[in-house]
Amino acid sequence: MAVGLSVLESLELVDGVRVGTVRAGIRYPDRSDLVVFELTAYSRCAVVFTRNAFCAAPVSIARAHLSKASPRYLLINAGNANAGNGEEGLNDALQCCTALASETGVAVESVLPFSTGVIGERLPVERITTAIPGLLRGLHADGWVDAAHAIMTTDTVAKGASRQIELAGHVYTITGIAKGSGMIRPSMATMLAFIATDASIEQDTLGECLKRATEASFNRITVDGDTSTNDACVLVATGRSRGPPIGTGASEVYQRFCNAVTEVCTFLAQSIVRDAEGATKFVAVEILGGRNEKECLKVAYAIAHSPLVKTAFFAGDPNWGRIVAAVGRASLPELDINGLRLYLDDILIFDRGARASSYRESAGREVMRKSEFTVRVELGRGSECATVWTSDLSHDYVKINAEYRS
Amino acid sequence: MAVGLSVLESLELVDGVRVGTVRAGIRYPDRSDLVVFELTAYSRCAVVFTRNAFCAAPVSIARAHLSKASPRYLLINAGNANAGNGEEGLNDALQCCTALASETGVAVESVLPFSTGVIGERLPVERITTAIPGLLRGLHADGWVDAAHAIMTTDTVAKGASRQIELAGHVYTITGIAKGSGMIRPSMATMLAFIATDASIEQDTLGECLKRATEASFNRITVDGDTSTNDACVLVATGRSRGPPIGTGASEVYQRFCNAVTEVCTFLAQSIVRDAEGATKFVAVEILGGRNEKECLKVAYAIAHSPLVKTAFFAGDPNWGRIVAAVGRASLPELDINGLRLYLDDILIFDRGARASSYRESAGREVMRKSEFTVRVELGRGSECATVWTSDLSHDYVKINAEYRS
Repeated sequence: MAVGLSVLESLELVDGVRVGTVRAGIRYPDRSDLVVFELTAYSRCAVVFTRNAFCAAPVSIARAHLSKASPRYLLINAGNANAGNGEEGLNDALQCCTALASETGVAVESVLPFSTGVIGERLPVERITTAIPGLLRGLHADGWVDAAHAIMTTDTVAKGASRQIELAGHVYTITGIAKGSGMIRPSMATMLAFIATDASIEQDTLGECLKRATEASFNRITVDGDTSTNDACVLVATGRSRGPPIGTGASEVYQRFCNAVTEVCTFLAQSIVRDAEGATKFVAVEILGGRNEKECLKVAYAIAHSPLVKTAFFAGDPNWGRIVAAVGRASLPELDINGLRLYLDDILIFDRGARASSYRESAGREVMRKSEFTVRVELGRGSECATVWTSDLSHDYVKINAEYRS
Repeated sequence: MAVGLSVLESLELVDGVRVGTVRAGIRYPDRSDLVVFELTAYSRCAVVFTRNAFCAAPVSIARAHLSKASPRYLLINAGNANAGNGEEGLNDALQCCTALASETGVAVESVLPFSTGVIGERLPVERITTAIPGLLRGLHADGWVDAAHAIMTTDTVAKGASRQIELAGHVYTITGIAKGSGMIRPSMATMLAFIATDASIEQDTLGECLKRATEASFNRITVDGDTSTNDACVLVATGRSRGPPIGTGASEVYQRFCNAVTEVCTFLAQSIVRDAEGATKFVAVEILGGRNEKECLKVAYAIAHSPLVKTAFFAGDPNWGRIVAAVGRASLPELDINGLRLYLDDILIFDRGARASSYRESAGREVMRKSEFTVRVELGRGSECATVWTSDLSHDYVKINAEYRS
């Protein structure tokens, strides 16, 4: 059902990163479900995690490890979130890290664990530790696309993106993969996403760049408003490129680098929405003319989370009353509905408190029949703006979530 | 599909109130869709309206009229919300009031208009004004049940309730009707509800009582998180009872009276959730042990609005991971997930960060198979509590809202 996504065929390799995948039999019988990333020594690594107060065991362990050592391995499983398992969950995650560490001879703190899948079931530790030797044997620089498949849960397509930029005569590569389809409303973090670059960059600058990129991408998407317990986004810089280091925030080179990282993140984030559970539409909700970005986001999410708006998207029904009602309940102080304009793509629908006189329903219907379109609201009370991307609410969303235990 | 609601057969009459209904052909060909309430002279009337910034024309007109005169007539139509129609919508609502006022010889400000139905279509004024003489001829004290039917839109059953209380040897009657099924997350107000009593009570005290009653009832329900543009709740006191006046807020008589009004409102509010679009379950979400009521409500609504939790309700799947994840994303400061307990009815499921050791999935499944149950979360960090009532998210919710234009 994914909207406007093609099959992931290839990704640019990143010097200093090798990727392995294997079938560990965690939940899915006939596919790979365990992934390892090997990062060359002296790589730098920045991670943002979910802000859900109920975070999964691997998130707690990865946070702790990250504060102690530089990561050399990322160990990722699909099919089991290892969330809601208390002390036992922490021990399970740690055991898997220990097995990988002893097999590779690194400190256990150099292994970061990541899990995605069902909440509240114990992680099958033995299956994972048994699979680790085979997983390591399969490590190769060209393992990205396989890994993008192996981390999927309710995803219907694998998600990945590469960008190459030339800076000071050197080509730098940025490649990333992501998974996610439901329980998507990342909060200050993302669903699982792994991005690597061969650039050389200081730790603080890398963290700053990741924060900026996720804020503009993963933190601007929503499928169902439900923030996951396992969200994480990793940005690795191996420093293996022969080009000069990226420099700090003020430099033009940093700006260009960070824009490229943001592009990769935005492509991945949009891919998640395009592959949202049951999605038949990919909709950009664009709010302009707000007093500040925060109120633009409030309005954007009120629209993007409204089940009535999302079912109208599904039906292809230009039901602007539901959109304007959602704007009205977003609790903006002193909002004057008469200053508001609503567009579907370029069609002006609602203007000064009523249906625009130029509007014909057939024109609105034509826009909403498309699989991709923009809902644009001009608040008419300032100069700030914000965009979020979302999907529709279809029969299949209910079917998938009534049948699948996430 | 309504959960646990029986057919509305009769309601207690309220001395001083007459009700009429008629087929005006506004949207539905074969049923009544226009209602009038006639209130005896010297009745007092308190109203709360939607806080949606995008409010419908009748809400604006009713607010203005209420500030100028004491209402003698309430004119209500189903099938058209008269929202999003700008100046023309205001004129249309006013014309209907004028027609009713001139037919009955009252000032136009003594007529309050109410509308519910499709947003953004012009009100068929002529059909309404043409129907008014017949509407008035049909006025009688026993018109409540017919009116409860005539105000329905996607409702599948008519909703009404009566309470009689004896105070100082006199019996007082409180009777109310309501409509609502989708676009339900009343904010400081309600869907359409009309409640009347024969008690004699001062205007300020009546307003205070209505506020208290709606806060505990209509403002504690949610179907889809979408606050309507037309919500209104009216409480009329005719003063025709021969008993003594109700007195002010401090008196025991007032407390008992207000409790009875709250009971009527709670029954009506719960009826709306029981008849929610596509509902197969009626679920109370009860939060205990919070630091204050506000944070309890935040957690309750995070659960009650989660599409993942609501599809799990629909599936009868005791998917506690989704519930705990919703608690975790409610943004409570310093929330310690290890202090949290989750129950389905009396079954303890989640305790100190993990599945309770006593919990068996079969027990959780048994609770969730029922059409009515309680999700109880103990936050373990205070002594405040709050309850909201909600429904599940079913295939039929999507079907109804993809096909119906609200």
